[in-house]
Amino acid sequence: MIFHYPNGKVYHKSQVNASTQLQKANTFANRGMKFEEAINESNRYYLNHDIAVIHKKPTPVQIVQVDYPRRSAAVIKEAYFKEASTTDYNGVYRGYYLDFEAKVTQNKTSFPLKNFHQHQIDHMKNCLKQNGLCFVLLYFSSLKRCFYLDSASLIDFWENPEKKSIRLDELEQLAIEIQLGIAPRVPYLIAVDQFITNKGDTTHG
Amino acid sequence: MIFHYPNGKVYHKSQVNASTQLQKANTFANRGMKFEEAINESNRYYLNHDIAVIHKKPTPVQIVQVDYPRRSAAVIKEAYFKEASTTDYNGVYRGYYLDFEAKVTQNKTSFPLKNFHQHQIDHMKNCLKQNGLCFVLLYFSSLKRCFYLDSASLIDFWENPEKKSIRLDELEQLAIEIQLGIAPRVPYLIAVDQFITNKGDTTHG
Repeated sequence: MIFHYPNGKVYHKSQVNASTQLQKANTFANRGMKFEEAINESNRYYLNHDIAVIHKKPTPVQIVQVDYPRRSAAVIKEAYFKEASTTDYNGVYRGYYLDFEAKVTQNKTSFPLKNFHQHQIDHMKNCLKQNGLCFVLLYFSSLKRCFYLDSASLIDFWENPEKKSIRLDELEQLAIEIQLGIAPRVPYLIAVDQFITNKGDTTHG
Repeated sequence: MIFHYPNGKVYHKSQVNASTQLQKANTFANRGMKFEEAINESNRYYLNHDIAVIHKKPTPVQIVQVDYPRRSAAVIKEAYFKEASTTDYNGVYRGYYLDFEAKVTQNKTSFPLKNFHQHQIDHMKNCLKQNGLCFVLLYFSSLKRCFYLDSASLIDFWENPEKKSIRLDELEQLAIEIQLGIAPRVPYLIAVDQFITNKGDTTHG
């Protein structure tokens, strides 16, 4: 039997599948973008309330050609994405240097380590050598649960050849869970405070 | 009398002037780029020697259109420069959050304050509230002299309606002069150390 849409068009199963695939792709990108947006919003909250100064680093691009139209803004006509050499976020909070990456997974029971890249790990190691406060924010989008994991612990997992992911129960043990909210949406500085207290660090302002 | 080049072309005075103007424009850009290059090189030195982790922030761009040629890297075909909301450089050193701008002048007796922009001043104020270590590196290219001026002092000058520039003798008083060298080319962390010592700050690692 041939089905028709109300507008008379014929229903093709393949079209629906293509549309679903596009939705799925958008959802994967969206999932990451939504968490990033929530963090950016939280950073704006922290900045506006004089709590911390934390920004996402701009995507590095190699600019090859710029046009200068008369009476208009310059237009970049050719550029390429460069590979970042650092993590995405950094800033200052109570005299501490803060540095972190934000990652999302759809998984329900573990966080895949392949979400991370060697250059991010190397950068975190370098910052730890300088006594920077480095961590990752891990978001389980299906569970709507968010964890703060300090970089030293992340690096332990990363360098363990037997580990391909961090289990949820391991995070419940080793990480600090963050209650998502409204203002700010991702109150990760509460976890930072807890980490500082646990470390017993009284040297900063 | 009509002069000819060895190749037979006629000498036109206007052409020489245009070439000189182009050279001048390139020199202005070059002057800033050369100092920036020297700082970037110094940051690489500091990173490679496990002394500090300091990077220049990428220029923020608004990406509008990206092409994905088969079997080639993605090409950004349309993008616009965004206004930065922070300073150019930041990072971590001995547990301190470092944040700075680098500026150049051809002047010989004073540094114009119009080299700075309100968003940079605002950013520095915000970082100072969080006990970050903020400063500017001022380079007098004609004199080949470089100064570290802490942001609190810079902001005092900026907010003084009678000041359009900072005099060289004022910098010799209030700033820390940096001896340019080879490895690294701009050893600004020596000035940072001196500033920390002068401040009598024993709270950081």
